[in-house]
Amino acid sequence: MDYQKRVKRVQKLLRRKGFDALLVTQPENRRYLSGFHDGDNGIGETSGVLVIPVSGKVHLLTDFRYQLQAEQEVPWAKVGVYTRGLLPHLKKLLPKFDIKTLAFESDYVLHSFAKSLSKTLGAVKIKIAPTKDLIEKMRIIKDQDEIECLRRSVLLNEEVFGEVYKNLKPGITEIELAVRIESLMRQKGAERPSFNSIIASAENSAFPHAVPTTAKIIKNKPLTVDMGLVLDGYCSDMTRTFVPGKADKKYLKIHRIVRKAQLAGIKAVRAGVTGREVDAISRKVIADAGYGKYFGHGLGHGVGLAIHENPRLSRINNKKLKAGMVVTVEPGIYIPGWGGIRLENMIVVREDGYEDLNQDTTFLDI
Amino acid sequence: MDYQKRVKRVQKLLRRKGFDALLVTQPENRRYLSGFHDGDNGIGETSGVLVIPVSGKVHLLTDFRYQLQAEQEVPWAKVGVYTRGLLPHLKKLLPKFDIKTLAFESDYVLHSFAKSLSKTLGAVKIKIAPTKDLIEKMRIIKDQDEIECLRRSVLLNEEVFGEVYKNLKPGITEIELAVRIESLMRQKGAERPSFNSIIASAENSAFPHAVPTTAKIIKNKPLTVDMGLVLDGYCSDMTRTFVPGKADKKYLKIHRIVRKAQLAGIKAVRAGVTGREVDAISRKVIADAGYGKYFGHGLGHGVGLAIHENPRLSRINNKKLKAGMVVTVEPGIYIPGWGGIRLENMIVVREDGYEDLNQDTTFLDI
Repeated sequence: MDYQKRVKRVQKLLRRKGFDALLVTQPENRRYLSGFHDGDNGIGETSGVLVIPVSGKVHLLTDFRYQLQAEQEVPWAKVGVYTRGLLPHLKKLLPKFDIKTLAFESDYVLHSFAKSLSKTLGAVKIKIAPTKDLIEKMRIIKDQDEIECLRRSVLLNEEVFGEVYKNLKPGITEIELAVRIESLMRQKGAERPSFNSIIASAENSAFPHAVPTTAKIIKNKPLTVDMGLVLDGYCSDMTRTFVPGKADKKYLKIHRIVRKAQLAGIKAVRAGVTGREVDAISRKVIADAGYGKYFGHGLGHGVGLAIHENPRLSRINNKKLKAGMVVTVEPGIYIPGWGGIRLENMIVVREDGYEDLNQDTTFLDI
Repeated sequence: MDYQKRVKRVQKLLRRKGFDALLVTQPENRRYLSGFHDGDNGIGETSGVLVIPVSGKVHLLTDFRYQLQAEQEVPWAKVGVYTRGLLPHLKKLLPKFDIKTLAFESDYVLHSFAKSLSKTLGAVKIKIAPTKDLIEKMRIIKDQDEIECLRRSVLLNEEVFGEVYKNLKPGITEIELAVRIESLMRQKGAERPSFNSIIASAENSAFPHAVPTTAKIIKNKPLTVDMGLVLDGYCSDMTRTFVPGKADKKYLKIHRIVRKAQLAGIKAVRAGVTGREVDAISRKVIADAGYGKYFGHGLGHGVGLAIHENPRLSRINNKKLKAGMVVTVEPGIYIPGWGGIRLENMIVVREDGYEDLNQDTTFLDI
């Protein structure tokens, strides 16, 4: 990844917007612009921030725990270590740059921090200015290197799924299966799961966002596995619903509708089509089959360094898709008391159509 | 846990401060006041908020994914489901309460959200007011039920450590050991690890906050294991450094200094002593032995529903400890190029002294 090229784009953007520097606090944005691996423990415990002045060297500010890692991973930046907190450090550092206005990320700065930042920097005549989506807008279009990272993430995720599927025996609990999956991910080199795996057996699968329970996985009942991992920073996200044992007629019927809806959605993806249109095309298949009211969520979301990012494939996105975007296509039918079926692949938007990053077809076309 | 009693305390506090209601966004505060299990995926993807009016029923607002869970876990609250986002929901709901000022948690609300909230509620003549530490201040003193939860969390964590220690064979990697530990935690019923386990072998142990690597665990070299889990919402946190194989003289010498410093710190804990004083007492043992400059962090931190909370045992905490606080005592000596040793227990502050929640003494007094 050419981080310094990305930084130059940001600097150009800052100049155009009249900011003298940008404070990058959002972990995925920080990684996108520097390659620095995150170790954040929630928004309250950051592992560092970037200061990007309109011209000149990027500063990566961190605490002593991450100093060595920062110097190794971002040798082209100036690594600064704050010993008495970030605010006093910024107050000392920024006046050296001749900065009048420091932009900050309104979507990843706490209200209290913005207030303290404003006060601290006000004392050295620096104003702060909220920005939104500055870096996120750059991240939304993936270059080919990033798409290859996403592909590797998807394929490793499928490898984990494949092993788990092959060795699955009903009788273990949802939690045990989740643990097995997430252990396998890390053993195979993933940084971590990209989200908490959803393992939902039988009736539990009627909840799109079920949390794994101590319920046992039951033979001949639907089982939804929604899993993803982070590899080299990039997230994968895949859902398969299948039946350990023998699927009954009702299952087969609904599965086929969901798969048909998914294929319709996937095939609708191309540059120039809106997120809303893709959602509608897939949704229509489910509605036409009489299950419209059992599909309560949007069709998909962008994936990249973050597990959920723009663009959305949903009623509320009237923007056109562009080449290089990567989205999930994940229709589902959820019937309370019976169960649910969701199928999810990751799709690259191309000028002239789509590319499916998934290769797994286990139990898909049945 | 008597959640409704806690809510009554909050309502009294709100009345005293002149607020008409409080918006609770911070996940541990939400759990403390309602028992609602968190499913948040970072600050950007909340699983719900509480609205606590000065009198009357608490509202738990969530999205459809958590509706059932919310109704089951918090039957005494009114569960509201927002379908078009939290802001429009609040705009409709709050005027029904005759609210003029809504307090919010400045330390767990994004700058951008506070701005939108102010604008949205301004349209219905409701002002918003930032608060800090309102609920955190209540959480800092644990009642006996909470201390029993913490004890169970500590003991389960020790059980996991014990099994791992017993079966440990040099040659596996730091990551493999981390995976084994975290899998075992979940198999034994933990909700999740309370933080990313620190597994640091040989020279890596010189970094207090080392991230597990693919480095192998080496025989006769120090190994630091810093691990914790969440059980019924409550966090444990324990560090042990030990030597798989035979410890050399230097190791034994430094280990004994750290243990001596830890015991001095533990014994200094009691109501009425400041965090700074406890830190100083333990630190003096290390400084007197000539290793003062190798102990670069504070002595300890509060633990409860959050893994890191107040009070701090460090130079900057001049406040007196109170009975019912629970803190870690974790001195360390870190020698670049050689390795580090840290020992960490969880200690309850009592009126007349301390109570050590840990029972594990594996490789402790050597």
